[in-house]
Amino acid sequence: MKPLILITNDDGIGAPGLRALIGIMRKLGKVVVVAPDKPQSGMGHAVTIQSPLRIHEIVREDEYEEYSCNGTPVDCVKLGQKAILKRNPDLIVSGINHGSNASINVLYSGTMAAVLEAAMEDIPAIGFSLDDYSYQADFSHVAPYITAIASNVLNNPLPAGVCLNVNIPALNGEPIKGVKVVRQARAFWDESFDERHDPHHRKYYWLQGVFTSKDEGTDTDDYAIRNNYVSIVPVQIDLTAHQAIELISNWDFDIEPGKEK
Amino acid sequence: MKPLILITNDDGIGAPGLRALIGIMRKLGKVVVVAPDKPQSGMGHAVTIQSPLRIHEIVREDEYEEYSCNGTPVDCVKLGQKAILKRNPDLIVSGINHGSNASINVLYSGTMAAVLEAAMEDIPAIGFSLDDYSYQADFSHVAPYITAIASNVLNNPLPAGVCLNVNIPALNGEPIKGVKVVRQARAFWDESFDERHDPHHRKYYWLQGVFTSKDEGTDTDDYAIRNNYVSIVPVQIDLTAHQAIELISNWDFDIEPGKEK
Repeated sequence: MKPLILITNDDGIGAPGLRALIGIMRKLGKVVVVAPDKPQSGMGHAVTIQSPLRIHEIVREDEYEEYSCNGTPVDCVKLGQKAILKRNPDLIVSGINHGSNASINVLYSGTMAAVLEAAMEDIPAIGFSLDDYSYQADFSHVAPYITAIASNVLNNPLPAGVCLNVNIPALNGEPIKGVKVVRQARAFWDESFDERHDPHHRKYYWLQGVFTSKDEGTDTDDYAIRNNYVSIVPVQIDLTAHQAIELISNWDFDIEPGKEK
Repeated sequence: MKPLILITNDDGIGAPGLRALIGIMRKLGKVVVVAPDKPQSGMGHAVTIQSPLRIHEIVREDEYEEYSCNGTPVDCVKLGQKAILKRNPDLIVSGINHGSNASINVLYSGTMAAVLEAAMEDIPAIGFSLDDYSYQADFSHVAPYITAIASNVLNNPLPAGVCLNVNIPALNGEPIKGVKVVRQARAFWDESFDERHDPHHRKYYWLQGVFTSKDEGTDTDDYAIRNNYVSIVPVQIDLTAHQAIELISNWDFDIEPGKEK
């Protein structure tokens, strides 16, 4: 039996990165695509609860189905699993994102939110991103890496609550050196707001920023990509800082039970 | 010097939970509120990058300022820090959310996204939520707990990259038993889509679900709240599943460097 693979992304149904991922996955299994009908970059783990969702059927063949919806990447996973397939797929892949999702970008990324959503549902899942924000990015070098990583996930169980964040260096004339399994780098966006005035003399702001590492480790995703390796970070849905529980338990909360008013 | 406290939320500038939190924080320091001009529940870590942001000044006094903006909770933190204050506040608090953000809700929650954003910027931060979704929820019992927890964070450094997710039981006639520092429960939303037809005979879908724990531990946020304790989960911005790095490093990726095509 061919595996059933659900594909989504956050750049929207028309994005070249999605098309590249579809082409690769169709060699591995039966593919169902459910992607946002418009770009949803930076949507994080947003989910649509205030307005109704709509699904648009685009292709429906034996081995391949394609749908768009008016929701977020997380909505796409929920709709794909619970309204379209009505079963769990064997694998959910998201991407290929136009732009790196290394380091803390995992928290902003709609691509990775879809993958975390799958992990909550105990479905094996991988997010793929290319370190090139251009819509015309060249995806010609990514297939062997994506095929190898997806095949491993199909054949080996991931730990419960764990999914993968894969980042691939942009095509730069040098051969990719290999694959590194690493941790999320400590980094931040050094940001500011560009303040402007509209024709009615009212202020508005554009967010602008530069991704800035503050991590000197060589075992990070950021380091791997900058050194022309494909990075794999295992990512977990448990955000508890377990090592901090004891510290905070020792704080004095100074409230007598029942006398709080 | 009074501490400078930035307040935001995801239920919007008019929410009673935000008003309750403002009242409590004004006893602890100088308060600046930057909140979304409309409800932003379930927005996760969404950030506005495709459209410009606007800020509306509502109150500007010596010890108290209040602004709304057309963005998400994460946008509010960025605007507050980088466009309004132009310095780091001593504390960022978010909430009080109408509804629990225990367990995996930390990933969906705009309230907690604002707090994680603060942690990325090395600003001490706490998200407060009440286990009552009603807009008319009773916040009369929360002040001593919020005051005690916020005072501790102002006086004790949190570890780097760590913030707090605080959930408070709804007022239920029984006194709250105390405070527990716990881990995020393993749970999920048992969801389905309610399929309907509009007057033009087109299908649309409403997401509906029931929060369901699959965790038998007594050291979790979900257990604490159900047993009438205030729960504190230290939450971290590092999502790496460190314990899975070795396992995945042993996979065979079977790609000869430089021969990937």
